[in-house]
Amino acid sequence: MSQPAPTLAPGSVGTVETQYLDLPQPVRLDCGRELHPVRVAYETYGALSPRRDNVILVCHALSGDAHAAGFAKAPPEESTRDGFGSEDRDGAGRKGLGWWDGMIGPGKAFDTDRFFVVSTNLLGGCRGTTGPSSIDPATGKPYGSDFPVITVADMVRTERALLDALGIERLAAVAGGSLGGMQALEWAILFPDQVDAVVSIASTHALHPQGVAWNAIARDAIMRDPAWQGGHYHGTGRSPDAGMGVARMVGHITYLSAPALSEKFGRRLQFADDIRYTIDEPEFEVENYLRHQADSFVKRFDANTYLYTSRALTYFDLARQHGGGSLAQALEGVSARTLLMAFSSDWLYPPSASKEIEEALRALGKPVELHVIEAMYGHDCFLLEEARQTPIIRRFLAQGGPG
Amino acid sequence: MSQPAPTLAPGSVGTVETQYLDLPQPVRLDCGRELHPVRVAYETYGALSPRRDNVILVCHALSGDAHAAGFAKAPPEESTRDGFGSEDRDGAGRKGLGWWDGMIGPGKAFDTDRFFVVSTNLLGGCRGTTGPSSIDPATGKPYGSDFPVITVADMVRTERALLDALGIERLAAVAGGSLGGMQALEWAILFPDQVDAVVSIASTHALHPQGVAWNAIARDAIMRDPAWQGGHYHGTGRSPDAGMGVARMVGHITYLSAPALSEKFGRRLQFADDIRYTIDEPEFEVENYLRHQADSFVKRFDANTYLYTSRALTYFDLARQHGGGSLAQALEGVSARTLLMAFSSDWLYPPSASKEIEEALRALGKPVELHVIEAMYGHDCFLLEEARQTPIIRRFLAQGGPG
Repeated sequence: MSQPAPTLAPGSVGTVETQYLDLPQPVRLDCGRELHPVRVAYETYGALSPRRDNVILVCHALSGDAHAAGFAKAPPEESTRDGFGSEDRDGAGRKGLGWWDGMIGPGKAFDTDRFFVVSTNLLGGCRGTTGPSSIDPATGKPYGSDFPVITVADMVRTERALLDALGIERLAAVAGGSLGGMQALEWAILFPDQVDAVVSIASTHALHPQGVAWNAIARDAIMRDPAWQGGHYHGTGRSPDAGMGVARMVGHITYLSAPALSEKFGRRLQFADDIRYTIDEPEFEVENYLRHQADSFVKRFDANTYLYTSRALTYFDLARQHGGGSLAQALEGVSARTLLMAFSSDWLYPPSASKEIEEALRALGKPVELHVIEAMYGHDCFLLEEARQTPIIRRFLAQGGPG
Repeated sequence: MSQPAPTLAPGSVGTVETQYLDLPQPVRLDCGRELHPVRVAYETYGALSPRRDNVILVCHALSGDAHAAGFAKAPPEESTRDGFGSEDRDGAGRKGLGWWDGMIGPGKAFDTDRFFVVSTNLLGGCRGTTGPSSIDPATGKPYGSDFPVITVADMVRTERALLDALGIERLAAVAGGSLGGMQALEWAILFPDQVDAVVSIASTHALHPQGVAWNAIARDAIMRDPAWQGGHYHGTGRSPDAGMGVARMVGHITYLSAPALSEKFGRRLQFADDIRYTIDEPEFEVENYLRHQADSFVKRFDANTYLYTSRALTYFDLARQHGGGSLAQALEGVSARTLLMAFSSDWLYPPSASKEIEEALRALGKPVELHVIEAMYGHDCFLLEEARQTPIIRRFLAQGGPG
């Protein structure tokens, strides 16, 4: 599906076009409702093996999309990359680089010379997969807040249905960071016989209470914006950009570590060497950075998708969902090999949660390895520390899967 | 000024009435403007010695007021106490307990059997001292965002003017936590000959960039609320309660540590044993707690005061203001003995900043001591860990001052 261009740097999957598939059956949701129709946006990189045994599913985080690698054929105005200081252009000034381009491609961590990588926009998304901004067939208007409340398991069932439609039964691996890592773990529990390996990065089995609180604040910032209009802002000419901006700013700071902010911005002022005595203008560089992040995010992301996805990742709790409160019990049926990675400075998805998963799997006799990488960029490390993740992932994947 | 009531617990200063004083002269501000008239709300506890040498000035933090100890004669509906889980009632159900009541009174850290304690509402406040909600004599209407942008030094100059009016020249000590601790340090620099001792708790010489960012987000949440109306919401029947609520929620989480949130709330759900699949209702106890904190705060606090006070505490930077970028140079003129306290789990005002102050003072040969207290409740510890602060403060104050 990818077309290598001669001018691209080595390791690029080339220019990629997002594809769309309408699922033949309704998706049954945890909340009891069924969703139909469901369209899934996806991209693929590499070639499917004749035995269809070299598939890696890549799952994105809160604000990502299906465009994980290469250059978008029709690049959006704003990149979906969430990395701290990351750019949506490559060295040659091309726009539309995928959010995990450093990890997916020939010779990269997820090596497209060997694997067929599938990346989807998650259920509830706003980048091609059915979500709150899609048309509700019952009304002919966008669902808005009538969209059913979804879970990570619902996202995984949708991914399963897409792969069914593509004729793919087994996964050599399912991989992702943050919310994407949650999906990977959920896959191993929901479909234990169909997943050979899990790569869960900067993730958790259940977000800790402070993380739940940050998500609640971000959602409240959106819902308190009068332009949200109870979730039915589509077609009104107004959208909760102000609240979304605040939500994004909260998110950004939680994705980074305090030392990273100190290194990047310090207390440097925007103008000259002194303060200007202003309440409403940015004075510090970090204040200006936050406003820029807020402004660019609202242009490309739907507020309701933010709400639904944030809610899903706070609900996610493997012990509650599958173990009657016990993480060990929840993981009992897992048969995949599991690779966990965490970053020392990640305080939103701290290494302690990955350690709990590792210990539970190890006590059950399951194959698992955990790597805690010393790095300073907080949660965003999963998007930035490509060079340090790559050898670990390549070695892990080389131990299993197709020849 | 305090009237011990026989039914009060030992150590209480009794029922206290806030007093008001109109400063005879304009206050000259860092921004170049003069402010006049300026009224200051204050309370006093204990008795002024004949030599007027037993005065301790207590300075409050972002959302406090002059009512630091005892019971308010006319208690407000909502307490000004910011502590995690703190109550605005005592054991007997009385309302209106001062925000530092555990620290001020007979036999307490700031012992009113020995000291005359003065507590003021800071300049720019909304609890009796002139601030953005006060009437602008030029227009006859509330200043709103026409109020001049103020600094911590401006707050200190106003406190100096109040004490002048009360006939008090010297301070045996100036004390405070957080923004209050900033004021205490500023006093030692602006008026070195008039301060014998400084007690600066959970504070800093300059907020670190992550703290600057949190404050920027809180202010943006208020200013993005359409009801803020550019700062001129008084008299319109609308006020930016939605944005203020978000600001308060952000504040609350930064005042607490992640372990404290885990201990207090865990991932406990609000209702029954399972989720209810809702976007807009609180599901987790911590979500409900946040909304409650937001709702109660907006009833008692002015949004513009929040903006101005937050801006002042981000501007505060002793090295920039007084040392040409050097903290050591800024502290060169200090003659007060300095007591610094910090809390191990305080990530908003981390111990590292207090260590920097200690090292700079020590290198200059100034008397200084730093105590880092191991405690889990984050920044709020300065309001909660009274038992552990008290012996340190009592011993420190006993080393100097009046007999």
